[in-house]
This record gives sequence, structure tokens and C-alpha cells, in this order.
Amino acid sequence: MNLCGNALTPASPLFAIAGPCVIESEAMTMAIAETLAGVAQRLGLTLIFKASFDKANRSSDQSFRGLGMSKGLQILDKVRRETGLAVITDVHEAGQVDEVAAVVDVLQTPAFLARQTDFIAAVAASGKPVNIKKAQFMAPADMQQVVNKARNAARAAGHDPDAFLLCERGTSFGYNTLVSDMRGLAIMAETGCPVVFDATHSVQQPGGLGERSGGQREFVPLLARAAVAAGVAGVFMETHPDPDQALSDGPNALPLGDFEELWKRLMAIDAVVKQG
Amino acid sequence: MNLCGNALTPASPLFAIAGPCVIESEAMTMAIAETLAGVAQRLGLTLIFKASFDKANRSSDQSFRGLGMSKGLQILDKVRRETGLAVITDVHEAGQVDEVAAVVDVLQTPAFLARQTDFIAAVAASGKPVNIKKAQFMAPADMQQVVNKARNAARAAGHDPDAFLLCERGTSFGYNTLVSDMRGLAIMAETGCPVVFDATHSVQQPGGLGERSGGQREFVPLLARAAVAAGVAGVFMETHPDPDQALSDGPNALPLGDFEELWKRLMAIDAVVKQG
Amino acid sequence: MNLCGNALTPASPLFAIAGPCVIESEAMTMAIAETLAGVAQRLGLTLIFKASFDKANRSSDQSFRGLGMSKGLQILDKVRRETGLAVITDVHEAGQVDEVAAVVDVLQTPAFLARQTDFIAAVAASGKPVNIKKAQFMAPADMQQVVNKARNAARAAGHDPDAFLLCERGTSFGYNTLVSDMRGLAIMAETGCPVVFDATHSVQQPGGLGERSGGQREFVPLLARAAVAAGVAGVFMETHPDPDQALSDGPNALPLGDFEELWKRLMAIDAVVKQG
Amino acid sequence: MNLCGNALTPASPLFAIAGPCVIESEAMTMAIAETLAGVAQRLGLTLIFKASFDKANRSSDQSFRGLGMSKGLQILDKVRRETGLAVITDVHEAGQVDEVAAVVDVLQTPAFLARQTDFIAAVAASGKPVNIKKAQFMAPADMQQVVNKARNAARAAGHDPDAFLLCERGTSFGYNTLVSDMRGLAIMAETGCPVVFDATHSVQQPGGLGERSGGQREFVPLLARAAVAAGVAGVFMETHPDPDQALSDGPNALPLGDFEELWKRLMAIDAVVKQG
Repeated sequence: MNLCGNALTPASPLFAIAGPCVIESEAMTMAIAETLAGVAQRLGLTLIFKASFDKANRSSDQSFRGLGMSKGLQILDKVRRETGLAVITDVHEAGQVDEVAAVVDVLQTPAFLARQTDFIAAVAASGKPVNIKKAQFMAPADMQQVVNKARNAARAAGHDPDAFLLCERGTSFGYNTLVSDMRGLAIMAETGCPVVFDATHSVQQPGGLGERSGGQREFVPLLARAAVAAGVAGVFMETHPDPDQALSDGPNALPLGDFEELWKRLMAIDAVVKQG
Repeated sequence: MNLCGNALTPASPLFAIAGPCVIESEAMTMAIAETLAGVAQRLGLTLIFKASFDKANRSSDQSFRGLGMSKGLQILDKVRRETGLAVITDVHEAGQVDEVAAVVDVLQTPAFLARQTDFIAAVAASGKPVNIKKAQFMAPADMQQVVNKARNAARAAGHDPDAFLLCERGTSFGYNTLVSDMRGLAIMAETGCPVVFDATHSVQQPGGLGERSGGQREFVPLLARAAVAAGVAGVFMETHPDPDQALSDGPNALPLGDFEELWKRLMAIDAVVKQG
Repeated sequence: MNLCGNALTPASPLFAIAGPCVIESEAMTMAIAETLAGVAQRLGLTLIFKASFDKANRSSDQSFRGLGMSKGLQILDKVRRETGLAVITDVHEAGQVDEVAAVVDVLQTPAFLARQTDFIAAVAASGKPVNIKKAQFMAPADMQQVVNKARNAARAAGHDPDAFLLCERGTSFGYNTLVSDMRGLAIMAETGCPVVFDATHSVQQPGGLGERSGGQREFVPLLARAAVAAGVAGVFMETHPDPDQALSDGPNALPLGDFEELWKRLMAIDAVVKQG
Repeated sequence: MNLCGNALTPASPLFAIAGPCVIESEAMTMAIAETLAGVAQRLGLTLIFKASFDKANRSSDQSFRGLGMSKGLQILDKVRRETGLAVITDVHEAGQVDEVAAVVDVLQTPAFLARQTDFIAAVAASGKPVNIKKAQFMAPADMQQVVNKARNAARAAGHDPDAFLLCERGTSFGYNTLVSDMRGLAIMAETGCPVVFDATHSVQQPGGLGERSGGQREFVPLLARAAVAAGVAGVFMETHPDPDQALSDGPNALPLGDFEELWKRLMAIDAVVKQG
């Protein structure tokens, strides 16, 4: 498929989707984006900048949700213009698709909504590439039906049906924790869609802290390395300069200061795995 | 809480939410409703009639979804008027709440959407009682946060915050099957909400048949009996005169002809469990 | 099958296997046995007294294991003679079978050893009925193979091949907890063996307390009621006069003082379920 | 620890434990051993030859179990003398330990028996290094208690307490399948024991074929790569010249012809992961 102007084939080197969980402020978002742009340039890494303008499914309704769509999109547009990075963000209902698609390069769908037919169709009909997250409650093989829904909607809207990434972000495993089944990465690739591993949501512990979700940030590098060795197209990773102070998903964010070293290693593993 | 004109307390006898998965036609819906009204009268059972006007999250976009909201609500209204049964249906997005709430006695939310804050708030603000389904990916204790969201929204809208049922419909257990953790029924009751056990979706095998979900209809009576013995307020059960021909969820529907005998037994168990 | 002199058929009323987890002392074991014998007589309940002489698979090697086989069997023999109750205990290796079978009425095998072919065969060849526990890592349908091994061994030794109970004691569900899948009770019954639900080990939280296993004693009555409503032949339950002081498995033991009331209710549910 | 004459430190390159599941015949065992010895020499790989003399926990008692201990040990001894490879085999009860330890370089314990205190102690007291498999029903952190039991027994027997490998071979995930939780590899390493990933039993589907277990052989390379990237000390892998004809565990064995290419890649990933 074509992703942000580049052909993405099974032989393409690993790409990154990275950024903070939520847009906390314009200043912090720009600072993170500039740091990531620098890393991308130094490493020769294709990096798509990710941040959310709204967290629509927090555990508690007392938690920070973001700056709202309008302000959020302005900031993402600024990231795009000033850093040259492509940007991705998630939408939460069909009514948001047009406004968001007008600004970002790639759309993303929340895992919990993977089975909502109208929503998947609306996002898929936008003409933008979409990173579709596999739900925690779905088997990897069942994403074929979701891909069919997306491709049918894209075709019906006159767009390229080959515009979808599938993203693994952990599977329900008992209560309050997730497991990353690396077999699922290969199973999802059988759809023909490039597969992305979300290394930070995969270490979430949903509801694990009562009013909010916990996380096992210490396992992010390990799972990212494992997924790259399994053979993914890209890795998704939320990162924050100070995860303990993050307004959302801090327990599972990678410290920004660790990003470059980790990606050097991921790219080296990727080279071993993808060599002929 | 007050449910359809009756006070529902921990000592109240078991009630039923029952009907076909989807409104296939007016004639069939009326026929099922009349049969169920007869059973309810003979057994002295409080029964709320359930049918969906749209199936918004089918495995495949090629499957039957229903007759649409407008036609569906007309039929539910007719059920109400002609049988005297209270009716319940599920809504799938905030924009549907007002129109649906104007017709039905009780609203229901889909399990996959249990964590969508705005959606739960919109439904909760309607002033109608709501049967909130626990997501397959959630621990029962985590429903406390969902209840908090619902009660906050009801209070903010000037409505009774004590208007919510919580419904267990199975928990992810490996791939393509669910398990019913009977402990969860007691854990959810700690929120103060009456708890309902959904005995037919609990035997679903999501994605188990490739393009659609399978089901283990033969276990519906067993799980219903177990949940009643565990001590629930109500049981939810989809039923169809000929499950093999049902347009949705046939593999996990109870044959309508088995309904009365099963409920006699459920009510007898309930009486044993709730006696002082 | 014939169990302790009684024919056990699908219509037979619920029986109990109950007692302390481990033989802590002769005095305490006799006291518990006498209490249980009194309850059994008052309720008209068939009760088999259970206690272990050795705990061979404790989490830590620093935990109390028991008084040993020789002393333990003496005490079980005394229980038998003085209370008139039949007795059951578990064996942990083939070499123990003869000595134990000479004393007890029923043998029991540990769940972890359900797949050890030689061990199952040795126990099955004893000529005693055996309560075979399903392993936490096995699907209920897979117990058919274990039953085949046991029946083959009984036949080869010239004994009745219809001498085996199957016992559910919880299934692995994520880490450090178990779930009771009530469907499994019916699936195991398809082997033709009477099925027993172990209501106290099912609430264990293996390894949950670091050096020992935790438990959710508060759910024992709920799960026992649910299993009886599902339709089992018997319920297994460890009970202790003061669970907080028990030397093994206290976190999941039923207080002895609650035993009689609970069993009245279980027997009433059983009567509803088994009536024609 | 010292393993077969080499110091094994966190910086040591990846080692292999490999061979057929069961000793089918002397000729085939020798042929596989010679092939593996050739690969080991060409790649500079430390390889310990593994084969079982008895399969003590097959699904069915009608399946092939092996040639027995005496004949099996003779063949393993011949492998040792003729190929120069170190050898490992599994024991199934305490009574076998002395005879087996007299022949092999490393002992192995079956996963199902990880919680049997006396058995673990007996193997640990042998003075040989032991590869202890984590049970499918255990959380990785709970292996600390097993390590404590083993170290206590080794110390009591006057042997080096630092002689144990821990081996991950998949964790129960619903029924009839396993999942490999890569986080567990790091959690088990916190015990101080080198960690081995068993890439072939991890793709077993226990009981999945009714009378025998199934397997997903196609995922062995993927999971092995992922585990090496996660950072293990060694990888265990059963291999057979013709898995479809193997007498045990064929569905999850790696074809012997694929062994060398896979290990080149594993060693390259290992080099990336362990570089400073």
C-alpha cells in the first residue's frame, strides 16, 4: 500500500508511529514532535507522529480527556508544517471523520470499536489510510471480516481498497491484564494488510488501578523487540518526556529519552529479519 | 430502583428480558411477543420484551442488520400496546437516544461500547432505566467506573441516578469463546445495581464460524440455572421459534417452545435462593 | 456407579465430599468429622469425609505438609470407625496406592497429575472408586482420554470400569486466578462419569500471595449453588472451624459454622433441578 | 552457572537444546544427532542434544511412549560418545533420577510436575544442572518458589545451588491452545536463572485433535525469533526429519531441514540484542 507517499511492501524497513498519548498542550506536543523528528532523521527512520485530541473511553469520567478536536487538529497541523512529519490521530465516531481527515495523513480507529460496522465503513470511506486496531476481545483471524468491511467501503467510495494497516495492541488475558500473542502478527498479515505492533498499549493493565488503568512500562522495549523479530511492518509507541507526569497512559509510556537507543536496536533486528 | 412501574429490590423475584435477537418482521415479532406475554401471565413472571432494530456490529457487513430504527420502533410500540409488555431495545450511538427513549421502557447498551464515556452519558441522561452490558474485555469490578459515569450523567440531567441494571454476557476466554464467571455477578452487585445475566450471548462463540459467530445453544438452560442460583435480579434470553432459521444469533438462541418449562425451573430455583 | 455401597445414578440426590484440607491433628480431625456426621444425619445427606495426609505440591517448601501417610491413615481409619462416615484422601504417587486403598473408601488424584498416565492407571487399578480431578490446564472434553486410561486400567486389573468420578476445580484464567466454567460440568458428564464440583479449590488464587496461594472464600457458597443448579452429582468442599488459622488453604475454606445452612440450600436447589 | 563445562552469563551467546521429541529408534536418533552436531560446528553454536526415553503424559494411553529408560539411556550415551554433544533428557519420577543422572549432562522436568515438591527436590539434589519447565498453569513470577525449592534441595545435598535453567513452554489461554507471554521471559530471569524458550511445545494445541494434541508448527520460527529478541539465554526446539511421520509431537516439530537457516537468523538477532 501507499503510506504517506511511500510504497509499503513486505520488504520495506520498519516504520514508527510515535508520540504522546494525548495532546496535553501545544508547547509540549511541538517539543516531543521536534525530538522525534530529530531521531527519525538521524536514524533514517520513517516516523508518523501520533497524538490524540480526545480520550473518549477513559476508565473514569473524572480523567483528563484532551483539548478537544478543533484545538487538537490545529496543533497536529502545526506539527505537520513545522517538523515535516506525517501525522496520525484517532477518531471516535463517524461524524468526526471528515474534519479530521482534512488535516491528518493517517486515521486510526480505537480497538474497542473494531466491530462497529458503520464506524469502520465511515473511516474507510475517507480516502485516507487507516490504522485499524484489533479489539482486545477478537482473535487475529477475525480481523479478516473487519478488513472486508473497510475494503468494501473504500471501494464503494471510489478509493483504493488497499489502504489499511492492522494493529495489535494486546488481547484479554484473565482480568486486568493483556497478553501479546506474537502468532497474531503473522495471522493478521494473511489479510494482505501491513501489520503494526502497538508496544505501549500492549502493556496496559486495564482498570488495574481502580479509577484508571495501570501499565508495565518496563516491558515496552522487550515486546517491541519481540514483535520486530516476529516480522512486523511498523511499531506504534507512545512516548512522553516524563511518563509519571503524563495526563493519560503514563504507566505504559516509553520515556522519550529512551526512544533513540531502542529504535537503533529495533532497526537492527528488523534488518536481520527482513534480509533475504 | 424503579423498573417499569415496579420497585426492584434484592428480594424481588426474578424477572425476564426476552425476545428475538433482531426484529425480522412485524408478524414474527408480534407472534413471539404474544407467546411470551402468555407465558408471563401463566407464570406470574415480570417480562420485558426485547428485540433489536439494528445489528450494528455483526461479524460481516454482508449479514442481515434489521428493518431500521423507524420501522423497528413502530413494531416495538405495537408490541407494547397490544401485549401490555414493557419493551427494551439497544441503541448504538448517542444520536439515537431521544427517538428510541420516546418509545421504549428500558434502553440497553451494547457490551463493546461499555467504555465509551459520551455514549454511556447520553443514554444515562435520557431518564429511562438502562441495562448496561459489561464488555467482554472488562473485569466485573471495573463496571463501578461505568456506573459512576452513568449516575453522574443522570444526576446532571435531573434524573434518578438509581436507574441502571448491569448485565453480564460473557468474558473473553482465549479466542473465539467466552466464559461466564459467576463470581462476577456478585461483584457487579456491589455497585448497588440489580444484575442481569444474559444467558444467550454468554454462549456465543465470537467469530467462531468465520463470517459469523457460532453459539452453544445447548448450554443456555444450564447457565441460566447457574446464574439464578448465584443470585441475580433478572435473566436476559434471546428466543426464536426456529433458531436454525433465525436471521441473527440463531446458534445461541433458545427455542421458543422450551421457554416456559425453563422459566418454571428458574423461578423455583430463585425462590430457594431468595428465601430468608 | 456404586459409591460407598450406594448406587449413584443421574437421579440420585446431591452428595458431599467435605472436610479439612489437611490433617492438622487427630483431635481437630475427629472434631470436624463429628460435626459433619451430625449435619449429614440431620439433613439426610450422603457425606464422604475428606482430609489429606500430605500436601505434596505447596507453593513453598517451607509450608506445613501434614502428619505423613502412616499417621494420617490411622486418623482416617478412626474417623471411619467412630463416625461411620466413608472417607476419601488423595494419593500423590503410584507407590502410595496400595497402602492408602487398604484404608479409605474412595481415592482422589491431584489435578496437576491428571495427565500422568502411569499414575492414573495405578490408582484406577486399585479397585476403589476414584475422584479424578480435572487439571486446571485441561479442557473438560479432554477428560474423556483420562477416563479411557482409568477404565482400561481398571478392566485390565479385573475391576469395575465404572468407578470414576470427575471433579472440576477451576480452570486457568490469566495469571493467579481460576474461573469456573459451568459448561464444563455438562461436558464432563458426557463421559458417563458422575461429576463433582470442588467449590473451595475453584476459588483459589494460585501463587496469589507470593509464597502461598490466596483464595476468595466469600464466593464458595455462590459457586456451589451455581454448580448444583447446573446439575452435578456431588459437591466437594473444604471446611475448617477457623479458616484464618488453617495450616493449608485457609483462604479458600468454608467456615465450618456455615456448613449446615449452605447445604440445606444446596439440597433444595438440587431437588428443583433433578425433579422430572 | 556452569553448563556442560561452560560458564553461562547474561552476556553468553544463545545456546540450543534440540532433538527429536522421543527416541523412536537408535538409527534415527543417531542420524538426527549427527546432523545437529554438524550444524552446531558450522555455526559455532553450543547445542545440547535432547530426546525423551518415555512420554509419560500422552493424551491417550494408546499412543507410542518410547523405547523405555534402559534402552533410551544407552542411545543417549552413544550420542554423547559419538557426536561429542552434551545430552539432556526428562525424568518423570523421583525414582528415575539416579539412573538418568549417571548418563546425561543435564536433566529436565516436565511442565505438569513443576509444583511437585518432592520431585523437584529429588532432581535438584542430583548434582546435575536441571532445565525446569514452567507449568502451563503458573504465572512466571511463581517460578521463584520452584527455584527456591530446587536451590534448597541442591544446597542440602552439598551441590551448587546455581544449577537451574527455567524454561517457558506456553501458558494456558482458553481451551486447547497456549499463548507465549514474552514478558514472562524477563520475569523468570529475575530469579537469577538463565531462561530458555521452548519454541515447539509453545505451539502445541493440547487435546486439540481429540485423542492427541495438535500443533502449529508454522509458528515455531516466529516465536523463536521473538523470544531471542526478548533476550533469552537459550532456545529449546524439537526437530524431526519428517514431522508428519513423527511418533510424538509431530504437529509442533520443526522440520530438521529448516534448522540451520533458522538458527543462523536466531544467532544474528541474539548478537543484536546482547551487544552492549
